[in-house]
Amino acid sequence: MSVDVDKAIAEIRAKVDGLPGAENKLTMIVFSGDLDKQLAAMIIATGAAAMGMKVVLFFTFWGTAALRAPLKKIGGKTFMGKMFGMMLPKGRNKLKLSQMHMAGMGTAMLKGLMQKKNVASLDQLFDVAGQLAVKIYICEMSMDLMGFKRDEMIDYPELEVCGVATMLAHAKESSVQFFI
Amino acid sequence: MSVDVDKAIAEIRAKVDGLPGAENKLTMIVFSGDLDKQLAAMIIATGAAAMGMKVVLFFTFWGTAALRAPLKKIGGKTFMGKMFGMMLPKGRNKLKLSQMHMAGMGTAMLKGLMQKKNVASLDQLFDVAGQLAVKIYICEMSMDLMGFKRDEMIDYPELEVCGVATMLAHAKESSVQFFI
Amino acid sequence: MSVDVDKAIAEIRAKVDGLPGAENKLTMIVFSGDLDKQLAAMIIATGAAAMGMKVVLFFTFWGTAALRAPLKKIGGKTFMGKMFGMMLPKGRNKLKLSQMHMAGMGTAMLKGLMQKKNVASLDQLFDVAGQLAVKIYICEMSMDLMGFKRDEMIDYPELEVCGVATMLAHAKESSVQFFI
Repeated sequence: MSVDVDKAIAEIRAKVDGLPGAENKLTMIVFSGDLDKQLAAMIIATGAAAMGMKVVLFFTFWGTAALRAPLKKIGGKTFMGKMFGMMLPKGRNKLKLSQMHMAGMGTAMLKGLMQKKNVASLDQLFDVAGQLAVKIYICEMSMDLMGFKRDEMIDYPELEVCGVATMLAHAKESSVQFFI
Repeated sequence: MSVDVDKAIAEIRAKVDGLPGAENKLTMIVFSGDLDKQLAAMIIATGAAAMGMKVVLFFTFWGTAALRAPLKKIGGKTFMGKMFGMMLPKGRNKLKLSQMHMAGMGTAMLKGLMQKKNVASLDQLFDVAGQLAVKIYICEMSMDLMGFKRDEMIDYPELEVCGVATMLAHAKESSVQFFI
Repeated sequence: MSVDVDKAIAEIRAKVDGLPGAENKLTMIVFSGDLDKQLAAMIIATGAAAMGMKVVLFFTFWGTAALRAPLKKIGGKTFMGKMFGMMLPKGRNKLKLSQMHMAGMGTAMLKGLMQKKNVASLDQLFDVAGQLAVKIYICEMSMDLMGFKRDEMIDYPELEVCGVATMLAHAKESSVQFFI
């Protein structure tokens, strides 16, 4: 009998180890480039990291613009790349609210309130995220489409360009996933 | 041998019990204050509860406005709190569609259609949710930012104010999570 | 002792098999009818299917309009059904960007860029999805509300109308879920 028991235990053990979602990990797709949604994403990300979860963010589409460094200038862009570069917000401090932006007044009001109430700004949240080893991926296809170059992105400890497969490989191991 | 087998079984059992996402539970972040998305959230929530899942909702940012009680009047607000109070919808019956609102016509049209087709309204969905013990949390930071007070929120059997950590603790135990 | 060990193993095995989220499967709610979000959904869906995951999509609300076949004409609609039919995009090639649509210019620009960069169009993504056996459900309640009929929807290998309970049953078995 002992052989059967050992075999059964090994089987179950392998199954448990290989279970999707078995890691204490959060994978988040940050699709939106709205200030409010980026704030939500970074508050969730830093909160999860502070609780000891591994955190992986995948910035894609409009979200990628939040990762642009405001002062880095990049040459060698195509005409379309320059167009997109001008039309999209240059970094996280240029993002707008999805609602009540009101020609900048609503966005400024929220930022003022956040400061007064000691709510962390996006700048501070990215700093904390870096310190807590939150991993940030940028979607390769989005960068290619919008003509963004790796060199115009922010300096961040764990920043990498990748495709959708890498994101999915993280997501399926994660106990929590969100699309924002 | 028997000692090893017992130990191995206990180990696997503990691992299975402690697996993230191992509970038949749904955690949903309700970020949006759009009528269509609030409807989607409440239809999913009540549907899941009716299927026997535990359901936890975390209302944050624009979503919190849907939890305001239309008739409760609250004093002692700051100037900014009064401003936000006036600009944000006062309760779930003041929400607008994210698209095709068309100065109220689209929203009214949808509400009329829902009534005609016997689709539950937000009022009815919140009632059902309460009966099915759907737990509702309101994001503390959002309330603080928008100057909302606990006393101006709806009467609901299971309503509590909490931070992002409480939401994440629920999410990681849950088999399903959505950000809406 | 052998009886206890066998019983314990059977118990753990049953528990592991019955764990929510234990399947290598992705369930996605496609709520948005924006071109950018539909692209994101289909890129994730086909990417996951190519990695060997089972993929289930649940198109609801604005998302359902993307499944309309542009050339199919359907009679017997109510007045409201005709209204919605006219106001909502007739199929995936009529969708607009959520931002920078700019009276069609931004949307056309993105489509042109996608072609130039060899990024798959929505047409191609739906083809690939069909080949990779991505299952598509349409939300029954949304179709009913908007007056859409099953016959005006696209020809797709695995297309079925269902309610929220079917979607949730898939979601809770899935290792990954997103609401887009």
